Amino acid sequence: MTAWRSALPETPDRQTFESRLRAIGAERYHDKHPFHVMLHGGECSLTQVRAWVINRYYYQSRIPMKDAAFMSRSENPDLRRAWRRRIEDHDGGVEEGGGIRRWLKLAEAVGLDPDYVASTRGVLAGTRFAVDAYVHFVRDKPMLEAVASSLTEMFAPKIHADRIAGLLKHYAFADDRALAYFRQRLNEAPEEVEFGLGYVLDHADTLEKQDAAAAALTFKTDVLWSQLDALFSAYVKPGRIPPGGWDGREAVTRFLPDDDIPKGPNP
Amino acid sequence: MTAWRSALPETPDRQTFESRLRAIGAERYHDKHPFHVMLHGGECSLTQVRAWVINRYYYQSRIPMKDAAFMSRSENPDLRRAWRRRIEDHDGGVEEGGGIRRWLKLAEAVGLDPDYVASTRGVLAGTRFAVDAYVHFVRDKPMLEAVASSLTEMFAPKIHADRIAGLLKHYAFADDRALAYFRQRLNEAPEEVEFGLGYVLDHADTLEKQDAAAAALTFKTDVLWSQLDALFSAYVKPGRIPPGGWDGREAVTRFLPDDDIPKGPNP
Repeated sequence: MTAWRSALPETPDRQTFESRLRAIGAERYHDKHPFHVMLHGGECSLTQVRAWVINRYYYQSRIPMKDAAFMSRSENPDLRRAWRRRIEDHDGGVEEGGGIRRWLKLAEAVGLDPDYVASTRGVLAGTRFAVDAYVHFVRDKPMLEAVASSLTEMFAPKIHADRIAGLLKHYAFADDRALAYFRQRLNEAPEEVEFGLGYVLDHADTLEKQDAAAAALTFKTDVLWSQLDALFSAYVKPGRIPPGGWDGREAVTRFLPDDDIPKGPNP
Repeated sequence: MTAWRSALPETPDRQTFESRLRAIGAERYHDKHPFHVMLHGGECSLTQVRAWVINRYYYQSRIPMKDAAFMSRSENPDLRRAWRRRIEDHDGGVEEGGGIRRWLKLAEAVGLDPDYVASTRGVLAGTRFAVDAYVHFVRDKPMLEAVASSLTEMFAPKIHADRIAGLLKHYAFADDRALAYFRQRLNEAPEEVEFGLGYVLDHADTLEKQDAAAAALTFKTDVLWSQLDALFSAYVKPGRIPPGGWDGREAVTRFLPDDDIPKGPNP
Protein backbone atom coordinates (compact mmCIF):
# COMPACT_ATOMS: atom_id res chain seq x y z
CA MET A 1 0.00 0.00 0.00
CA THR A 2 1.47 3.35 -0.96
CA ALA A 3 1.61 6.25 1.41
CA TRP A 4 -0.91 8.41 -0.42
CA ARG A 5 -3.38 5.55 -0.54
CA SER A 6 -3.21 4.84 3.17
CA ALA A 7 -3.80 8.55 3.82
CA LEU A 8 -7.20 8.40 2.13
CA PRO A 9 -9.98 7.81 4.62
CA GLU A 10 -11.53 4.41 4.05
CA THR A 11 -15.27 4.12 3.63
CA PRO A 12 -16.60 2.55 6.82
CA ASP A 13 -18.43 -0.77 6.27
CA ARG A 14 -22.20 -1.12 6.41
CA GLN A 15 -22.31 -2.14 10.04
CA THR A 16 -20.15 0.75 11.19
CA PHE A 17 -22.23 3.16 9.15
CA GLU A 18 -25.48 1.76 10.52
CA SER A 19 -24.11 2.22 14.03
CA ARG A 20 -23.31 5.82 13.19
CA LEU A 21 -26.90 6.39 12.07
CA ARG A 22 -28.30 4.75 15.20
CA ALA A 23 -26.04 6.89 17.39
CA ILE A 24 -27.69 10.02 15.93
CA GLY A 25 -31.01 8.75 17.19
CA ALA A 26 -29.59 7.85 20.59
CA GLU A 27 -28.31 11.40 20.92
CA ARG A 28 -30.95 13.58 19.27
CA TYR A 29 -34.26 11.77 18.76
CA HIS A 30 -37.21 13.61 20.27
CA ASP A 31 -38.04 10.85 22.76
CA LYS A 32 -35.63 12.75 24.99
CA HIS A 33 -37.46 16.07 24.67
CA PRO A 34 -38.95 17.29 27.99
CA PHE A 35 -42.38 17.63 26.39
CA HIS A 36 -42.50 13.91 25.65
CA VAL A 37 -41.26 13.11 29.14
CA MET A 38 -44.19 15.16 30.47
CA LEU A 39 -46.69 13.66 28.04
CA HIS A 40 -45.78 10.05 28.70
CA GLY A 41 -45.47 10.61 32.44
CA GLY A 42 -48.97 12.07 32.77
CA GLU A 43 -47.70 15.56 33.63
CA CYS A 44 -49.36 17.34 30.71
CA SER A 45 -52.61 19.19 31.27
CA LEU A 46 -55.36 18.41 28.80
CA THR A 47 -54.75 21.80 27.21
CA GLN A 48 -51.15 20.79 26.59
CA VAL A 49 -52.24 17.42 25.20
CA ARG A 50 -54.70 19.17 22.89
CA ALA A 51 -52.04 21.60 21.70
CA TRP A 52 -49.82 18.64 20.90
CA VAL A 53 -52.66 16.90 19.00
CA ILE A 54 -53.36 20.06 16.96
CA ASN A 55 -49.73 20.70 16.08
CA ARG A 56 -48.68 17.13 15.49
CA TYR A 57 -51.60 16.82 13.07
CA TYR A 58 -49.81 19.26 10.80
CA TYR A 59 -46.88 16.87 10.64
CA GLN A 60 -49.17 13.92 9.85
CA SER A 61 -50.92 15.92 7.15
CA ARG A 62 -47.67 16.70 5.35
CA ILE A 63 -46.17 13.20 5.39
CA PRO A 64 -48.05 11.95 2.31
CA MET A 65 -47.18 15.21 0.51
CA LYS A 66 -43.54 14.58 1.39
CA ASP A 67 -43.79 11.00 0.10
CA ALA A 68 -45.47 12.13 -3.11
CA ALA A 69 -42.66 14.68 -3.60
CA PHE A 70 -40.18 11.84 -3.20
CA MET A 71 -41.95 9.59 -5.69
CA SER A 72 -42.27 12.47 -8.17
CA ARG A 73 -38.49 12.47 -8.44
CA SER A 74 -37.84 8.78 -8.96
CA GLU A 75 -37.61 7.34 -12.46
CA ASN A 76 -37.49 3.84 -11.01
CA PRO A 77 -40.87 2.03 -10.88
CA ASP A 78 -39.52 -0.46 -8.31
CA LEU A 79 -38.65 2.36 -5.97
CA ARG A 80 -42.03 4.03 -6.48
CA ARG A 81 -43.86 0.73 -5.90
CA ALA A 82 -41.96 0.18 -2.67
CA TRP A 83 -42.64 3.73 -1.51
CA ARG A 84 -46.28 4.26 -2.38
CA ARG A 85 -47.49 2.14 0.53
CA ARG A 86 -46.49 5.00 2.80
CA ILE A 87 -49.07 7.24 1.16
CA GLU A 88 -51.71 4.52 1.40
CA ASP A 89 -50.90 4.01 5.08
CA HIS A 90 -51.47 7.68 5.84
CA ASP A 91 -54.33 8.51 3.49
CA GLY A 92 -56.29 5.24 3.72
CA GLY A 93 -59.16 4.42 1.38
CA VAL A 94 -61.68 6.82 -0.11
CA GLU A 95 -64.13 6.28 2.72
CA GLU A 96 -62.11 5.07 5.67
CA GLY A 97 -58.81 4.05 7.20
CA GLY A 98 -55.41 5.72 7.15
CA GLY A 99 -53.22 7.42 9.72
CA ILE A 100 -54.70 10.87 9.17
CA ARG A 101 -58.23 9.70 10.01
CA ARG A 102 -56.88 7.76 12.99
CA TRP A 103 -55.18 10.92 14.25
CA LEU A 104 -58.50 12.75 14.05
CA LYS A 105 -60.01 10.03 16.26
CA LEU A 106 -57.43 11.01 18.84
CA ALA A 107 -58.49 14.64 18.37
CA GLU A 108 -62.11 13.68 19.09
CA ALA A 109 -61.07 11.66 22.13
CA VAL A 110 -59.36 14.68 23.70
CA GLY A 111 -62.50 16.75 23.13
CA LEU A 112 -61.44 18.71 20.03
CA ASP A 113 -63.50 19.40 16.94
CA PRO A 114 -61.79 17.21 14.33
CA ASP A 115 -62.73 19.62 11.53
CA TYR A 116 -60.85 22.38 13.32
CA VAL A 117 -57.80 20.16 13.70
CA ALA A 118 -58.00 19.14 10.04
CA SER A 119 -58.20 22.81 9.01
CA THR A 120 -54.70 23.33 10.53
CA ARG A 121 -55.80 26.74 11.78
CA GLY A 122 -54.12 27.48 15.07
CA VAL A 123 -51.03 25.43 14.23
CA LEU A 124 -47.94 27.24 15.53
CA ALA A 125 -45.76 28.98 12.96
CA GLY A 126 -42.78 27.11 14.43
CA THR A 127 -44.52 23.81 13.67
CA ARG A 128 -45.33 24.85 10.10
CA PHE A 129 -41.80 26.02 9.38
CA ALA A 130 -40.20 22.85 10.73
CA VAL A 131 -42.56 20.50 8.92
CA ASP A 132 -42.44 22.45 5.67
CA ALA A 133 -38.65 22.33 5.87
CA TYR A 134 -38.93 18.54 5.79
CA VAL A 135 -41.18 18.58 2.71
CA HIS A 136 -38.82 20.98 0.94
CA PHE A 137 -35.81 18.88 1.92
CA VAL A 138 -37.29 15.75 0.35
CA ARG A 139 -38.33 17.72 -2.73
CA ASP A 140 -34.92 19.32 -3.29
CA LYS A 141 -32.13 17.08 -1.98
CA PRO A 142 -30.42 14.08 -3.61
CA MET A 143 -32.46 10.88 -3.34
CA LEU A 144 -30.06 9.28 -0.88
CA GLU A 145 -30.52 12.18 1.54
CA ALA A 146 -34.27 12.20 1.00
CA VAL A 147 -34.46 8.53 2.01
CA ALA A 148 -32.01 8.98 4.90
CA SER A 149 -34.18 11.76 6.34
CA SER A 150 -36.99 9.20 6.77
CA LEU A 151 -34.87 6.98 9.01
CA THR A 152 -36.02 8.57 12.26
CA GLU A 153 -38.58 5.77 11.87
CA MET A 154 -35.84 3.46 13.14
CA PHE A 155 -36.31 5.04 16.55
CA ALA A 156 -40.12 5.33 16.45
CA PRO A 157 -41.32 1.90 17.71
CA LYS A 158 -39.99 2.55 21.21
CA ILE A 159 -41.59 6.01 21.45
CA HIS A 160 -44.92 4.66 20.19
CA ALA A 161 -44.88 1.82 22.72
CA ASP A 162 -43.93 4.24 25.53
CA ARG A 163 -46.69 6.59 24.43
CA ILE A 164 -49.40 3.94 24.35
CA ALA A 165 -48.41 2.74 27.82
CA GLY A 166 -48.03 6.26 29.24
CA LEU A 167 -51.28 7.64 27.82
CA LEU A 168 -53.28 4.56 28.90
CA LYS A 169 -51.88 4.80 32.39
CA HIS A 170 -52.32 8.51 32.98
CA TYR A 171 -55.20 9.87 30.88
CA ALA A 172 -58.89 9.00 31.08
CA PHE A 173 -59.44 9.77 27.38
CA ALA A 174 -56.99 7.10 26.26
CA ASP A 175 -58.51 3.88 24.93
CA ASP A 176 -57.96 1.61 21.94
CA ARG A 177 -59.94 3.83 19.62
CA ALA A 178 -58.09 7.00 20.65
CA LEU A 179 -54.70 5.34 20.34
CA ALA A 180 -55.33 3.39 17.14
CA TYR A 181 -52.86 5.61 15.27
CA PHE A 182 -49.94 4.54 17.41
CA ARG A 183 -50.82 0.83 17.41
CA GLN A 184 -51.07 0.84 13.65
CA ARG A 185 -47.71 2.59 13.28
CA LEU A 186 -46.13 -0.17 15.33
CA ASN A 187 -47.18 -2.54 12.53
CA GLU A 188 -46.30 -0.32 9.58
CA ALA A 189 -43.03 1.27 10.58
CA PRO A 190 -40.73 -1.79 10.70
CA GLU A 191 -41.32 -2.66 7.04
CA GLU A 192 -40.70 0.94 5.97
CA VAL A 193 -37.55 1.07 8.05
CA GLU A 194 -36.22 -2.13 6.53
CA PHE A 195 -36.60 -0.76 3.01
CA GLY A 196 -35.29 2.73 3.79
CA LEU A 197 -32.32 1.54 5.80
CA GLY A 198 -31.40 -1.02 3.14
CA TYR A 199 -31.54 1.69 0.48
CA VAL A 200 -29.30 4.03 2.45
CA LEU A 201 -26.77 1.33 3.36
CA ASP A 202 -26.64 0.21 -0.28
CA HIS A 203 -26.27 3.67 -1.79
CA ALA A 204 -23.98 5.41 0.70
CA ASP A 205 -20.92 3.74 -0.75
CA THR A 206 -18.41 6.52 -0.11
CA LEU A 207 -17.52 8.37 3.05
CA GLU A 208 -18.86 11.55 1.50
CA LYS A 209 -22.25 9.97 0.88
CA GLN A 210 -22.29 8.52 4.38
CA ASP A 211 -21.63 12.00 5.74
CA ALA A 212 -24.47 13.41 3.65
CA ALA A 213 -26.87 10.69 4.80
CA ALA A 214 -25.90 11.22 8.44
CA ALA A 215 -26.46 14.98 8.03
CA ALA A 216 -29.89 14.30 6.51
CA LEU A 217 -30.87 12.15 9.47
CA THR A 218 -29.56 14.83 11.85
CA PHE A 219 -31.61 17.43 9.99
CA LYS A 220 -34.71 15.28 10.49
CA THR A 221 -34.09 14.98 14.23
CA ASP A 222 -33.98 18.80 14.24
CA VAL A 223 -37.36 18.88 12.46
CA LEU A 224 -38.90 16.77 15.21
CA TRP A 225 -37.14 18.47 18.13
CA SER A 226 -37.94 21.95 16.87
CA GLN A 227 -41.67 21.18 16.77
CA LEU A 228 -41.60 20.25 20.45
CA ASP A 229 -39.54 23.32 21.33
CA ALA A 230 -42.19 25.51 19.72
CA LEU A 231 -44.95 23.61 21.55
CA PHE A 232 -43.13 23.82 24.88
CA SER A 233 -42.48 27.55 24.44
CA ALA A 234 -46.13 28.27 23.62
CA TYR A 235 -47.92 26.01 26.13
CA VAL A 236 -45.47 25.09 28.91
CA LYS A 237 -42.65 27.54 29.49
CA PRO A 238 -42.60 30.49 29.14
CA GLY A 239 -46.14 29.61 27.98
CA ARG A 240 -46.34 32.48 25.51
CA ILE A 241 -48.66 31.64 22.62
CA PRO A 242 -47.41 33.40 19.49
CA PRO A 243 -49.79 35.35 17.22
CA GLY A 244 -52.05 32.95 15.35
CA GLY A 245 -51.50 30.01 17.70
CA TRP A 246 -54.40 28.02 19.20
CA ASP A 247 -55.64 29.88 22.26
CA GLY A 248 -56.36 26.84 24.45
CA ARG A 249 -60.14 27.15 24.11
CA GLU A 250 -61.16 27.36 20.46
CA ALA A 251 -62.70 24.16 19.07
CA VAL A 252 -62.90 22.45 22.47
CA THR A 253 -66.24 20.75 21.99
CA ARG A 254 -66.30 18.49 24.99
CA PHE A 255 -65.00 18.92 28.50
CA LEU A 256 -63.37 15.89 30.05
CA PRO A 257 -63.43 14.82 33.69
CA ASP A 258 -59.84 15.89 34.28
CA ASP A 259 -60.11 19.08 32.24
CA ASP A 260 -58.01 22.08 33.18
CA ILE A 261 -60.01 24.85 31.55
CA PRO A 262 -63.15 26.38 33.05
CA LYS A 263 -66.35 24.79 31.80
CA GLY A 264 -68.75 27.02 29.95
CA PRO A 265 -69.10 28.62 26.56
CA ASN A 266 -65.92 29.72 24.84
CA PRO A 267 -65.37 33.46 24.98
CA MET B 1 -77.68 48.70 -9.26
CA THR B 2 -79.15 45.19 -9.26
CA ALA B 3 -79.50 43.17 -6.10
CA TRP B 4 -76.91 40.54 -7.06
CA ARG B 5 -74.39 43.23 -7.88
CA SER B 6 -74.73 45.01 -4.57
CA ALA B 7 -74.26 41.64 -2.81
CA LEU B 8 -70.75 41.29 -4.24
CA PRO B 9 -68.13 42.57 -1.82
CA GLU B 10 -66.50 45.70 -3.16
CA THR B 11 -62.74 45.88 -3.42
CA PRO B 12 -61.56 48.29 -0.74
CA ASP B 13 -59.69 51.33 -2.08
CA ARG B 14 -55.91 51.75 -1.88
CA GLN B 15 -55.97 53.72 1.33
CA THR B 16 -58.21 51.24 3.14
CA PHE B 17 -56.03 48.39 1.93
CA GLU B 18 -52.84 50.15 3.03
CA SER B 19 -54.39 50.67 6.47
CA ARG B 20 -55.15 46.96 6.60
CA LEU B 21 -51.52 46.14 5.86
CA ARG B 22 -50.26 48.59 8.48
CA ALA B 23 -52.62 47.12 11.07
CA ILE B 24 -50.92 43.72 10.60
CA GLY B 25 -47.64 45.32 11.62
CA ALA B 26 -49.23 47.11 14.56
CA GLU B 27 -50.54 43.78 15.82
CA ARG B 28 -47.84 41.25 14.96
CA TYR B 29 -44.49 42.87 14.11
CA HIS B 30 -41.63 41.55 16.22
CA ASP B 31 -40.89 44.89 17.87
CA LYS B 32 -43.44 43.66 20.42
CA HIS B 33 -41.61 40.40 21.13
CA PRO B 34 -40.27 40.17 24.71
CA PHE B 35 -36.77 39.41 23.44
CA HIS B 36 -36.60 42.79 21.70
CA VAL B 37 -37.99 44.50 24.77
CA MET B 38 -35.15 42.93 26.77
CA LEU B 39 -32.53 43.72 24.11
CA HIS B 40 -33.44 47.36 23.70
CA GLY B 41 -33.91 47.87 27.45
CA GLY B 42 -30.46 46.57 28.33
CA GLU B 43 -31.77 43.46 30.07
CA CYS B 44 -30.02 40.94 27.83
CA SER B 45 -26.80 39.34 29.03
CA LEU B 46 -23.92 39.44 26.58
CA THR B 47 -24.48 35.71 25.96
CA GLN B 48 -28.04 36.49 24.93
CA VAL B 49 -26.87 39.36 22.70
CA ARG B 50 -24.31 37.05 21.08
CA ALA B 51 -26.94 34.36 20.50
CA TRP B 52 -29.09 36.98 18.81
CA VAL B 53 -26.16 38.13 16.61
CA ILE B 54 -25.40 34.53 15.57
CA ASN B 55 -28.97 33.66 14.76
CA ARG B 56 -29.96 36.91 13.12
CA TYR B 57 -26.93 36.56 10.85
CA TYR B 58 -28.64 33.57 9.29
CA TYR B 59 -31.55 35.80 8.33
CA GLN B 60 -29.21 38.44 6.85
CA SER B 61 -27.34 35.80 4.89
CA ARG B 62 -30.53 34.52 3.23
CA ILE B 63 -32.00 37.88 2.24
CA PRO B 64 -29.98 38.25 -0.99
CA MET B 65 -30.78 34.61 -1.85
CA LYS B 66 -34.44 35.44 -1.34
CA ASP B 67 -34.11 38.52 -3.57
CA ALA B 68 -32.30 36.54 -6.25
CA ALA B 69 -35.09 33.94 -6.15
CA PHE B 70 -37.56 36.77 -6.66
CA MET B 71 -35.66 38.26 -9.60
CA SER B 72 -35.24 34.82 -11.16
CA ARG B 73 -39.01 34.70 -11.60
CA SER B 74 -39.61 38.10 -13.16
CA GLU B 75 -39.66 38.51 -16.93
CA ASN B 76 -39.84 42.27 -16.51
CA PRO B 77 -36.48 44.08 -16.74
CA ASP B 78 -37.92 47.17 -15.02
CA LEU B 79 -38.91 45.11 -12.04
CA ARG B 80 -35.53 43.37 -11.90
CA ARG B 81 -33.71 46.72 -12.18
CA ALA B 82 -35.75 48.13 -9.31
CA TRP B 83 -35.15 45.05 -7.19
CA ARG B 84 -31.47 44.34 -7.70
CA ARG B 85 -30.37 47.17 -5.43
CA ARG B 86 -31.51 45.05 -2.51
CA ILE B 87 -28.88 42.46 -3.34
CA GLU B 88 -26.22 45.15 -3.74
CA ASP B 89 -27.22 46.66 -0.40
CA HIS B 90 -26.71 43.36 1.37
CA ASP B 91 -23.74 41.92 -0.50
CA GLY B 92 -21.78 45.14 -1.11
CA GLY B 93 -18.77 45.31 -3.43
CA VAL B 94 -16.20 42.61 -4.08
CA GLU B 95 -13.88 43.90 -1.38
CA GLU B 96 -16.02 45.88 1.00
CA GLY B 97 -19.39 47.27 2.02
CA GLY B 98 -22.79 45.64 2.30
CA GLY B 99 -25.11 44.70 5.11
CA ILE B 100 -23.65 41.23 5.62
CA ARG B 101 -20.15 42.61 6.25
CA ARG B 102 -21.63 45.29 8.52
CA TRP B 103 -23.40 42.60 10.52
CA LEU B 104 -20.08 40.80 10.99
CA LYS B 105 -18.66 44.04 12.43
CA LEU B 106 -21.36 43.80 15.06
CA ALA B 107 -20.30 40.18 15.66
CA GLU B 108 -16.71 41.32 16.25
CA ALA B 109 -17.88 44.10 18.55
CA VAL B 110 -19.67 41.62 20.83
CA GLY B 111 -16.52 39.48 20.99
CA LEU B 112 -17.45 36.75 18.53
CA ASP B 113 -15.24 35.23 15.84
CA PRO B 114 -16.84 36.61 12.66
CA ASP B 115 -15.77 33.52 10.69
CA TYR B 116 -17.76 31.36 13.08
CA VAL B 117 -20.80 33.58 12.68
CA ALA B 118 -20.42 33.54 8.89
CA SER B 119 -20.20 29.73 8.94
CA THR B 120 -23.77 29.63 10.38
CA ARG B 121 -22.75 26.68 12.57
CA GLY B 122 -24.59 26.87 15.86
CA VAL B 123 -27.61 28.60 14.34
CA LEU B 124 -30.77 27.21 15.94
CA ALA B 125 -32.85 24.79 13.87
CA GLY B 126 -35.88 26.98 14.62
CA THR B 127 -34.09 29.96 13.05
CA ARG B 128 -33.13 27.98 9.95
CA PHE B 129 -36.62 26.62 9.42
CA ALA B 130 -38.27 30.04 9.77
CA VAL B 131 -35.80 31.81 7.47
CA ASP B 132 -35.79 29.03 4.89
CA ALA B 133 -39.59 29.18 4.88
CA TYR B 134 -39.28 32.81 3.76
CA VAL B 135 -36.89 31.93 0.92
CA HIS B 136 -39.18 29.11 -0.22
CA PHE B 137 -42.22 31.37 -0.01
CA VAL B 138 -40.65 33.95 -2.31
CA ARG B 139 -39.49 31.22 -4.68
CA ASP B 140 -42.87 29.50 -4.91
CA LYS B 141 -45.71 31.99 -4.42
CA PRO B 142 -47.32 34.42 -6.89
CA MET B 143 -45.27 37.58 -7.43
CA LEU B 144 -47.77 39.79 -5.61
CA GLU B 145 -47.45 37.68 -2.47
CA ALA B 146 -43.68 37.54 -2.81
CA VAL B 147 -43.51 41.34 -2.85
CA ALA B 148 -46.09 41.69 -0.08
CA SER B 149 -44.00 39.44 2.19
CA SER B 150 -41.20 42.04 2.01
CA LEU B 151 -43.43 44.77 3.45
CA THR B 152 -42.41 44.16 7.06
CA GLU B 153 -39.83 46.77 6.03
CA MET B 154 -42.62 49.33 6.48
CA PHE B 155 -42.32 48.74 10.21
CA ALA B 156 -38.51 48.48 10.38
CA PRO B 157 -37.35 52.11 10.69
CA LYS B 158 -38.83 52.45 14.17
CA ILE B 159 -37.27 49.22 15.43
CA HIS B 160 -33.87 50.19 14.00
CA ALA B 161 -34.01 53.60 15.64
CA ASP B 162 -35.11 52.06 18.96
CA ARG B 163 -32.31 49.53 18.69
CA ILE B 164 -29.59 52.08 18.00
CA ALA B 165 -30.73 54.17 20.96
CA GLY B 166 -31.18 51.17 23.27
CA LEU B 167 -27.89 49.49 22.46
CA LEU B 168 -25.92 52.75 22.71
CA LYS B 169 -27.47 53.48 26.08
CA HIS B 170 -27.09 50.08 27.69
CA TYR B 171 -24.13 48.20 26.18
CA ALA B 172 -20.44 49.12 26.30
CA PHE B 173 -19.73 47.35 22.99
CA ALA B 174 -22.12 49.60 21.08
CA ASP B 175 -20.52 52.31 18.97
CA ASP B 176 -20.90 53.68 15.45
CA ARG B 177 -18.83 50.91 13.92
CA ALA B 178 -20.76 48.15 15.71
CA LEU B 179 -24.12 49.64 14.80
CA ALA B 180 -23.33 50.62 11.20
CA TYR B 181 -25.70 47.96 9.92
CA PHE B 182 -28.73 49.57 11.53
CA ARG B 183 -27.83 53.13 10.56
CA GLN B 184 -27.40 52.08 6.96
CA ARG B 185 -30.75 50.27 6.95
CA LEU B 186 -32.42 53.49 8.07
CA ASN B 187 -31.23 54.98 4.78
CA GLU B 188 -31.99 52.02 2.52
CA ALA B 189 -35.33 50.77 3.77
CA PRO B 190 -37.61 53.73 2.92
CA GLU B 191 -36.83 53.56 -0.80
CA GLU B 192 -37.43 49.79 -0.85
CA VAL B 193 -40.69 50.22 1.02
CA GLU B 194 -41.91 52.86 -1.40
CA PHE B 195 -41.36 50.57 -4.36
CA GLY B 196 -42.73 47.41 -2.70
CA LEU B 197 -45.79 49.10 -1.25
CA GLY B 198 -46.57 50.81 -4.55
CA TYR B 199 -46.31 47.47 -6.35
CA VAL B 200 -48.66 45.76 -3.91
CA LEU B 201 -51.22 48.58 -3.91
CA ASP B 202 -51.17 48.64 -7.73
CA HIS B 203 -51.49 44.90 -8.24
CA ALA B 204 -53.91 43.89 -5.46
CA ASP B 205 -56.90 45.08 -7.48
CA THR B 206 -59.44 42.55 -6.21
CA LEU B 207 -60.49 41.64 -2.69
CA GLU B 208 -59.10 38.15 -3.23
CA LYS B 209 -55.67 39.55 -4.11
CA GLN B 210 -55.78 41.92 -1.14
CA ASP B 211 -56.52 38.94 1.10
CA ALA B 212 -53.59 37.03 -0.38
CA ALA B 213 -51.23 39.99 0.07
CA ALA B 214 -52.36 40.47 3.67
CA ALA B 215 -51.82 36.75 4.34
CA ALA B 216 -48.32 37.02 2.86
CA LEU B 217 -47.46 39.90 5.14
CA THR B 218 -48.89 37.99 8.11
CA PHE B 219 -46.77 34.99 7.14
CA LYS B 220 -43.69 37.21 7.17
CA THR B 221 -44.47 38.53 10.65
CA ASP B 222 -44.61 34.86 11.72
CA VAL B 223 -41.16 34.31 10.18
CA LEU B 224 -39.74 37.12 12.31
CA TRP B 225 -41.63 36.28 15.50
CA SER B 226 -40.79 32.58 15.30
CA GLN B 227 -37.06 33.33 15.15
CA LEU B 228 -37.30 35.24 18.43
CA ASP B 229 -39.41 32.52 20.04
CA ALA B 230 -36.69 29.99 19.22
CA LEU B 231 -34.03 32.34 20.57
CA PHE B 232 -35.99 33.05 23.74
CA SER B 233 -36.64 29.34 24.34
CA ALA B 234 -32.95 28.45 23.92
CA TYR B 235 -31.28 31.32 25.78
CA VAL B 236 -33.84 32.97 28.07
CA LYS B 237 -36.71 30.75 29.18
CA PRO B 238 -36.75 27.83 29.64
CA GLY B 239 -33.16 28.37 28.45
CA ARG B 240 -32.86 24.92 26.90
CA ILE B 241 -30.39 24.96 24.01
CA PRO B 242 -31.53 22.38 21.43
CA PRO B 243 -29.06 19.88 19.90
CA GLY B 244 -26.68 21.70 17.55
CA GLY B 245 -27.32 25.17 18.97
CA TRP B 246 -24.48 27.51 19.98
CA ASP B 247 -23.41 26.58 23.50
CA GLY B 248 -22.79 30.13 24.78
CA ARG B 249 -18.99 29.78 24.73
CA GLU B 250 -17.82 28.57 21.32
CA ALA B 251 -16.18 31.26 19.17
CA VAL B 252 -16.12 33.84 21.97
CA THR B 253 -12.75 35.36 21.20
CA ARG B 254 -12.82 38.37 23.45
CA PHE B 255 -14.27 38.93 26.89
CA LEU B 256 -15.96 42.25 27.45
CA PRO B 257 -16.05 44.30 30.64
CA ASP B 258 -19.68 43.40 31.34
CA ASP B 259 -19.32 39.77 30.27
CA ASP B 260 -21.50 37.16 31.92
CA ILE B 261 -19.45 34.05 31.21
CA PRO B 262 -16.38 33.03 33.23
CA LYS B 263 -13.14 34.26 31.73
CA GLY B 264 -10.64 31.65 30.68
CA PRO B 265 -10.11 29.21 27.84
CA ASN B 266 -13.19 27.65 26.36
CA PRO B 267 -13.75 24.06 27.50
